[in-house]
Amino acid sequence: MSIATRSRPTDEPLLPRPGDRLESVSTPRPVIDEDRLAGNIARVQRYMDAQGLSFRPHIKTHKIPALAHEQIAAGARGINCQKITEAEIFADAGIEDILITFNIWGAEKLARLLSLHRRIAGLKATADSAETVAGLSGVFAGESRPLPVLVECDTGGGRCGVQSPEDAVALAARIHAADGLAFGGLMTYPRTGGAAEVEAFFAATLAGLSARGLDCPAISNGGTPSLFDAHLVTSATEHRAGTYIYNDRSTVRAGHCGEEDCAMHVLATVVSRPTATRAVIDAGTKALTSDLLGFADHGLVLGYPNARIVGLSEEHGVIDLGAGDGAGPAIGERLRIVPNHTCVVSNLFDHMIFHRDGIVTRVEPVAARGLVW
Amino acid sequence: MSIATRSRPTDEPLLPRPGDRLESVSTPRPVIDEDRLAGNIARVQRYMDAQGLSFRPHIKTHKIPALAHEQIAAGARGINCQKITEAEIFADAGIEDILITFNIWGAEKLARLLSLHRRIAGLKATADSAETVAGLSGVFAGESRPLPVLVECDTGGGRCGVQSPEDAVALAARIHAADGLAFGGLMTYPRTGGAAEVEAFFAATLAGLSARGLDCPAISNGGTPSLFDAHLVTSATEHRAGTYIYNDRSTVRAGHCGEEDCAMHVLATVVSRPTATRAVIDAGTKALTSDLLGFADHGLVLGYPNARIVGLSEEHGVIDLGAGDGAGPAIGERLRIVPNHTCVVSNLFDHMIFHRDGIVTRVEPVAARGLVW
Repeated sequence: MSIATRSRPTDEPLLPRPGDRLESVSTPRPVIDEDRLAGNIARVQRYMDAQGLSFRPHIKTHKIPALAHEQIAAGARGINCQKITEAEIFADAGIEDILITFNIWGAEKLARLLSLHRRIAGLKATADSAETVAGLSGVFAGESRPLPVLVECDTGGGRCGVQSPEDAVALAARIHAADGLAFGGLMTYPRTGGAAEVEAFFAATLAGLSARGLDCPAISNGGTPSLFDAHLVTSATEHRAGTYIYNDRSTVRAGHCGEEDCAMHVLATVVSRPTATRAVIDAGTKALTSDLLGFADHGLVLGYPNARIVGLSEEHGVIDLGAGDGAGPAIGERLRIVPNHTCVVSNLFDHMIFHRDGIVTRVEPVAARGLVW
Repeated sequence: MSIATRSRPTDEPLLPRPGDRLESVSTPRPVIDEDRLAGNIARVQRYMDAQGLSFRPHIKTHKIPALAHEQIAAGARGINCQKITEAEIFADAGIEDILITFNIWGAEKLARLLSLHRRIAGLKATADSAETVAGLSGVFAGESRPLPVLVECDTGGGRCGVQSPEDAVALAARIHAADGLAFGGLMTYPRTGGAAEVEAFFAATLAGLSARGLDCPAISNGGTPSLFDAHLVTSATEHRAGTYIYNDRSTVRAGHCGEEDCAMHVLATVVSRPTATRAVIDAGTKALTSDLLGFADHGLVLGYPNARIVGLSEEHGVIDLGAGDGAGPAIGERLRIVPNHTCVVSNLFDHMIFHRDGIVTRVEPVAARGLVW
């Protein structure tokens, strides 16, 4: 099979050019407001600076190297990735301080991790089991420069992570003793509102590490849901967050920002008005995704406060107009929708369109989308 | 801006080659079983043939021209697309009979529709409003060969469509009278179990059309949920369905097939076993999507009947192992998951991997993915 038979068309012929008006952008499409983007980057960095916390943005939200550079220029320490392929793309773009917060497993992925480590100075990984540590050490053994590995701690989030401070200490000691690895610190993705649990888990772990004579170079707390609780975890040295750069309906609900800070809008067009109270738009799950994040409907329709996107199929969104917005939007009217969750919307599109005051400023490839692992 | 700055990496370096074992495919990844695929294509075509119905597969599920050719070779009349860009890709691949079941709106899209119509003999569109018909006629006026336009009817599905047989007849007459357009028939996407409603709506509409002296060239019923009810709509001349080609947890639940007919499995790897009852896999919403389709969890884990994927974040799936499957999968174990909904999984990946008995047979670009409209 040749590479040629594998290539696929792209959306490039459909993209606008800088200077084009947003009205010329075909729907459905997410677009990013440059001023809101810059405001979000600056505001969260200021908060982290004020707390004396290093900030490590998670690039899963945007997957665009240019935006990571903007985050770093504003003061971020480095970046957080979830996949090796993501990390490779950002390393290619010149970023050296990368934490991959995922248990890396399998010969092919471990080989790529080693290769990336040899290319950049600041690669760090995480582990929550002896098996993952053994996999890492099996590949990194003998490296002149060890790979820092942080212990992932389950402080109540209920996903990955060691279950107790005792287990955290034991795994730290195992990493410390492993050929080619260095104990890099502690990492957690906490449950929302779990600052006290995080603090207690870290305090007990630090005491245990100290008793074992192990230094803890970093304590990495995380999550946009816990973003403005970061100062409550006084033991943490850094915080990771992704969604804040675009913001979305979920971060507005969390009180992290106002609707006027939502940099991403999904542009959609009304394609049908079957009844007086129903409008159908050209954005469905393949533009908005089916992520609810606790909401009962599928995004916020700007300009129509009574409208609710009650149903999505793949290419259609069904809006119940309710009462109180007058006749509602006409066929052909373009709507702006604040999605429930930006990160999954980004992941659907090969390119992202940016604008200022309705004029397209740039088009960025969503470079790390669709690379699988 | 040059095209170069717009291009993005692809997953091509990560793809297996024909002859590779499935075990070498990096996770997370959907893969397609060739024999099940062929069985699904044949079985549904046989059913449609037995009912004397034309069959028009919806390509949204796979977005792969080679598969559309397999569907047509089995006896399908043509294809159903939801977007112009999808239709263009399949026309480029030599398919001429294409029905786009979407209200096309906007100058740029209408211009592309006209251009596509001039290229292929069998393009057909749909409309559910005078506004959409006016838009189409505004661009197609004067064409020597009119564009057939079907009237979309809301027979209970609650999405797009005229609301009554009287409105259907009136819109048919409007299309018939419009310069550059021809009345192409009736189309519906019914609610599940709505065959009697569909039949009543179509019967009344046909009577009205007959009273106006209007021929009805086609009656297009649709949907995988209504797939094996197609014979209950005796007025229909064709049926459209997409999901049947891969099948998924939803079509098993509907009784359309058995689990052994699910051609798509999402391959995932266990990356963490934090507790005795919890396993975490490397497939989250960016591999399985958050489509629930009425299920309470996120896919069927083969080999572990008590396992439930209770939570997804973007790159993690949290499995509650419950009791009864022994110790459950170990870290590093590869799992196969039948997703709730195949169509949205396809849409996340740039390439699809096919296999027979665990040996990779081919890798197809998901050619019409991410083209936006």
